[in-house]
Amino acid sequence: MTESDFPVVGVIGGGQLARMMTPPAEALALRLRLLADSPDDSAAQVIVDTVLGDYRDLATLRAFASACDVVTFDHEHVPIEHLRALSAEGVTVRPSPEALVFAQDKGLMRERLSELDVPLPRWRRVTSVSDVESFAEAGDGFPVVIKATRGGYDGKGVWIATNAHEAAEVLSHGQVPGFLVEELVPYSRELAAVVARSPSGQAVTYPVVETVQRDGICHEVYAPAPGLDDERAVAAQQIALKIAGELGVVGVLAVELFETAEGVVVNELAMRPHNSGHWSIEGAVTSQFENHLRAVLDLPLGDPSLVAGTTVMVNLLGGELEDIHSAYLHCMARDPGLRVHVYGKSVKPGRKIGHVTVVGRAVGVPGELVTMLERTRHAVAYLRGDIDE
Amino acid sequence: MTESDFPVVGVIGGGQLARMMTPPAEALALRLRLLADSPDDSAAQVIVDTVLGDYRDLATLRAFASACDVVTFDHEHVPIEHLRALSAEGVTVRPSPEALVFAQDKGLMRERLSELDVPLPRWRRVTSVSDVESFAEAGDGFPVVIKATRGGYDGKGVWIATNAHEAAEVLSHGQVPGFLVEELVPYSRELAAVVARSPSGQAVTYPVVETVQRDGICHEVYAPAPGLDDERAVAAQQIALKIAGELGVVGVLAVELFETAEGVVVNELAMRPHNSGHWSIEGAVTSQFENHLRAVLDLPLGDPSLVAGTTVMVNLLGGELEDIHSAYLHCMARDPGLRVHVYGKSVKPGRKIGHVTVVGRAVGVPGELVTMLERTRHAVAYLRGDIDE
Repeated sequence: MTESDFPVVGVIGGGQLARMMTPPAEALALRLRLLADSPDDSAAQVIVDTVLGDYRDLATLRAFASACDVVTFDHEHVPIEHLRALSAEGVTVRPSPEALVFAQDKGLMRERLSELDVPLPRWRRVTSVSDVESFAEAGDGFPVVIKATRGGYDGKGVWIATNAHEAAEVLSHGQVPGFLVEELVPYSRELAAVVARSPSGQAVTYPVVETVQRDGICHEVYAPAPGLDDERAVAAQQIALKIAGELGVVGVLAVELFETAEGVVVNELAMRPHNSGHWSIEGAVTSQFENHLRAVLDLPLGDPSLVAGTTVMVNLLGGELEDIHSAYLHCMARDPGLRVHVYGKSVKPGRKIGHVTVVGRAVGVPGELVTMLERTRHAVAYLRGDIDE
Repeated sequence: MTESDFPVVGVIGGGQLARMMTPPAEALALRLRLLADSPDDSAAQVIVDTVLGDYRDLATLRAFASACDVVTFDHEHVPIEHLRALSAEGVTVRPSPEALVFAQDKGLMRERLSELDVPLPRWRRVTSVSDVESFAEAGDGFPVVIKATRGGYDGKGVWIATNAHEAAEVLSHGQVPGFLVEELVPYSRELAAVVARSPSGQAVTYPVVETVQRDGICHEVYAPAPGLDDERAVAAQQIALKIAGELGVVGVLAVELFETAEGVVVNELAMRPHNSGHWSIEGAVTSQFENHLRAVLDLPLGDPSLVAGTTVMVNLLGGELEDIHSAYLHCMARDPGLRVHVYGKSVKPGRKIGHVTVVGRAVGVPGELVTMLERTRHAVAYLRGDIDE
């Protein structure tokens, strides 16, 4: 065995998702090669073979890919025409541009999922306020949700319009290629179904989780979703598997869903490791990051099941505090069982800069979820500087 | 928060122990700086800030340490006089040379542990065959164990002499500063007690494990040691804590013990993450590698307890097979629950090149250990090329 027997996985984008691929790459001796914007990028700090360059530039992508056995992603913003060009030139791009386009464009995604009879909120593309008004009138009226079809993430590119005037304000942003409108779903909570799929068609499904979002940003994840009806859990997993299979997704696919009185409907999807799967680093036998790497390399997938009990993950969003290192010392002293993750990113208000996980003893231990939430929330509040004891 | 708020841990030695420090460093945004012999070293492949140089050269060590907040070790072979020099110059060396000398010199270690009334096999330093003979005659006669006081590892520097002739043969190797002789302990099995201790004196103890050695090389570890009497487990942990405290060890201390009819006696010790603790990567809430980093930085230590059930680790020693990558694909397909670790080292017969871990559901589930051992042993046999199905 020499190092060179092991494949090189090229990752485009230097964020925390690429960073969190490093532990499984280390374990499996997979060689990561990173395309990052800056040496300060979260992943660039920890990946030896880092290339700096612009992911929007085809020549840069081409040079980067030439030394990779497969190319995958930390984010979904690489121009699809560049990926098509690379793919045509023989570069193995996973997920493929044919799949990734549905993660990049919310309109195309909804059209395709509608064809597949996947449950979706009522929606349509809109180009004018009158389109929005007629959509609202045909349903329950305002408020409605307006989304930019491209470029949104973490709540960006999503607006709630309570009347035509607000809708006009949103549309005046004039984003290309446009907007869609969607009914405001009366959901009881949000769920996520994460699956990993390999090119040979093998797929594994993680337990369906509950996610708590605020302003469109993930704050908390509980795995598995507490008290979720078995039938609905299976339905959510089957939806994710169907999408992965029909769209030809390779790697991790995260499907965000609303749970309503009637069942589950799809909200959004992502074709990469996802915030709703970070709990799996400690909480699952095989993490989403390892299974993403295995999938894009067409290695057999690992066991996605819980390693022990219910697992809670709370995101650390940038707050007042800048000196995370001193703060986490306090948290570690207070609670030796915390699994603290910081991404090496500079603190900006609301920016995802880390997360804290606690793994429970079993699923459904009375009171355990409450205690785990207190512990993780306290740690995150302290790390943000919201509390000082 | 910027990256530079986080401390730099210098690690001397580019082996797999340094390599396995990278996942917790990634999670906690600790910055690793590595002194390695070659860019092909196991850890050099995955640590961005790698310096190539000779750890036996003081000027090299000094330059390396100048950019570190603390210096620690992948191995115990750095000349103690160099570490004393660095320490005198203000470099924070953990464990300190005052402690590390007892890990480097088996004679000094036994003298010190004797003073502390730690249970040891009967032993003495020897410089001649007549020393060995008189030691044997004073006890149960031959066979006896002869050990080089310095430089041994993985069975190297340890011999069993069944008569004076064989003893003479060993002593003719003429190693400096010499040899010691020890009674051959009639043990029922080998155990290891791993603890981590911080400069402020906080310490955590991992569950006592059973280790299976062949030719002085660790082959298997079961955590916790199956059926170990509670009193003996506590005794082993107390011995390890006592040694850590009395010797002023900072970081991980592994104490290898023999279990006999009467109790436990110390065999050897190591002041760094140790093969008997690799199971903790997946099997404990906080791994030995994370607790080593926390300890040398005087961060509060993490929970060393089992995350779920009994955990089994089997070492992958180099065999016939060179293409580990193709082989582990087969293992992953056969058993999705395996945690495979390969170190990126070239295959040499008997060389530690990886390990495989399986985490059980609970402690003491009837039959589970047998099944887990079958799974891990099969995987390792396949990865070695001993079997082909």
